[in-house]
Amino acid sequence: MKIRQLFDYDTWTYTYLIWDEATKEAAVIDTVLEQVERDLQHITELGLTVKYLLETHVHADHITGAGPLRKKTSAQIVIHKNSGSECADILTSEGDVLKLGEQEIRVLHTPGHTDNDSTYLIEGAAFTGDALLIRDCGRTDFQLGSNEALYHSITQKLFTLPESTIVFPGHDYRGLSQSTIAEERAFNTRIGNDKSLEEFSQIMDNLNLPNPKRIHIAVPGNLKCGDLES
Amino acid sequence: MKIRQLFDYDTWTYTYLIWDEATKEAAVIDTVLEQVERDLQHITELGLTVKYLLETHVHADHITGAGPLRKKTSAQIVIHKNSGSECADILTSEGDVLKLGEQEIRVLHTPGHTDNDSTYLIEGAAFTGDALLIRDCGRTDFQLGSNEALYHSITQKLFTLPESTIVFPGHDYRGLSQSTIAEERAFNTRIGNDKSLEEFSQIMDNLNLPNPKRIHIAVPGNLKCGDLES
Repeated sequence: MKIRQLFDYDTWTYTYLIWDEATKEAAVIDTVLEQVERDLQHITELGLTVKYLLETHVHADHITGAGPLRKKTSAQIVIHKNSGSECADILTSEGDVLKLGEQEIRVLHTPGHTDNDSTYLIEGAAFTGDALLIRDCGRTDFQLGSNEALYHSITQKLFTLPESTIVFPGHDYRGLSQSTIAEERAFNTRIGNDKSLEEFSQIMDNLNLPNPKRIHIAVPGNLKCGDLES
Repeated sequence: MKIRQLFDYDTWTYTYLIWDEATKEAAVIDTVLEQVERDLQHITELGLTVKYLLETHVHADHITGAGPLRKKTSAQIVIHKNSGSECADILTSEGDVLKLGEQEIRVLHTPGHTDNDSTYLIEGAAFTGDALLIRDCGRTDFQLGSNEALYHSITQKLFTLPESTIVFPGHDYRGLSQSTIAEERAFNTRIGNDKSLEEFSQIMDNLNLPNPKRIHIAVPGNLKCGDLES
């Protein structure tokens, strides 16, 4: 599997273009509306056929480009069933498997940042969205977030993956691009080093973060898959 | 060889942390002064011993963190001999080889953006600095830059590498993180698709770019290896 990490400077979002080298079947994880032309150009130049547009969750900080990309590629939009999405083509549940060329994409339901977070597992890599970030994790204070759920998702599902699994997050705010499960188990500042749920909750309950600037347009925009005119 | 790409948001600079997994010997390519603490933390967490601080050239847009990192790690600073650096430990020439654990780093002299550009070749990856960027290349209008030299460096040295060689550039301004020699030969907008030197020069001579904001502090700062108090 080939992986290209793409970055949106305005929202600090990582998009991932992944493809099976043998068949050129591709998936794009967490596209950004403003980057659709860039992504399409890259897809064309690489000679890829996009089969899936994978969303890790209903984002609150940016609008997905999945809808516009679907129109150009005929790919299917994939998101967890808890999202309540009426525009997605495939609504996933824990353990679902998507075929991409000769590879398999396995879906883990990793809620806690929202109620509809998915981690996509592909050949030793975990695309964790905003559940597990590098030395960090997604906030839990809106969109049906939950400290308990996120603690369970990270410690019981993600931290039990093979230690060498590469973690590709949905964002980073310090310029880091990837990590591993071993590193996050050891060094994650909010949940690593065997922190208890109580310790984790105390950290999360005291973050005092402002609401994302775009939440009031991003969430409804994402529930339309980024097709804003529809 | 393990590779971590790190990004500085203020100057759009990519720093690379690379290491030999067997021996944990590491090199850091193109550090940024403001990111030294981040990089040191990462080096410590990963249990690495930094042997080299590799500069692809004397930068005009940011100040290197190599000097401060040398003080903390005892690593050697490496740059091309044309740089005129009096603070580096190793001045390189075309074809030099540096040992990193069980791996080899091969130096290509790829001038044209400046007169002292090096590309570092490591196990199927080319760290091209500002010589070859993704679909783009470094400017040629100061620091002894030269259209002819850059055209020769890219077409005769970089484009003759194996097509699958991964290109890790010194910057990107669109959120792209890596490319390949095959892609740049085909799609580089300034020099790909068999452009002639005349076509390339016409493009380069009409860029009309402003001077980098920091050039007057960056170049002298880099000639001190970022040790600004010395």
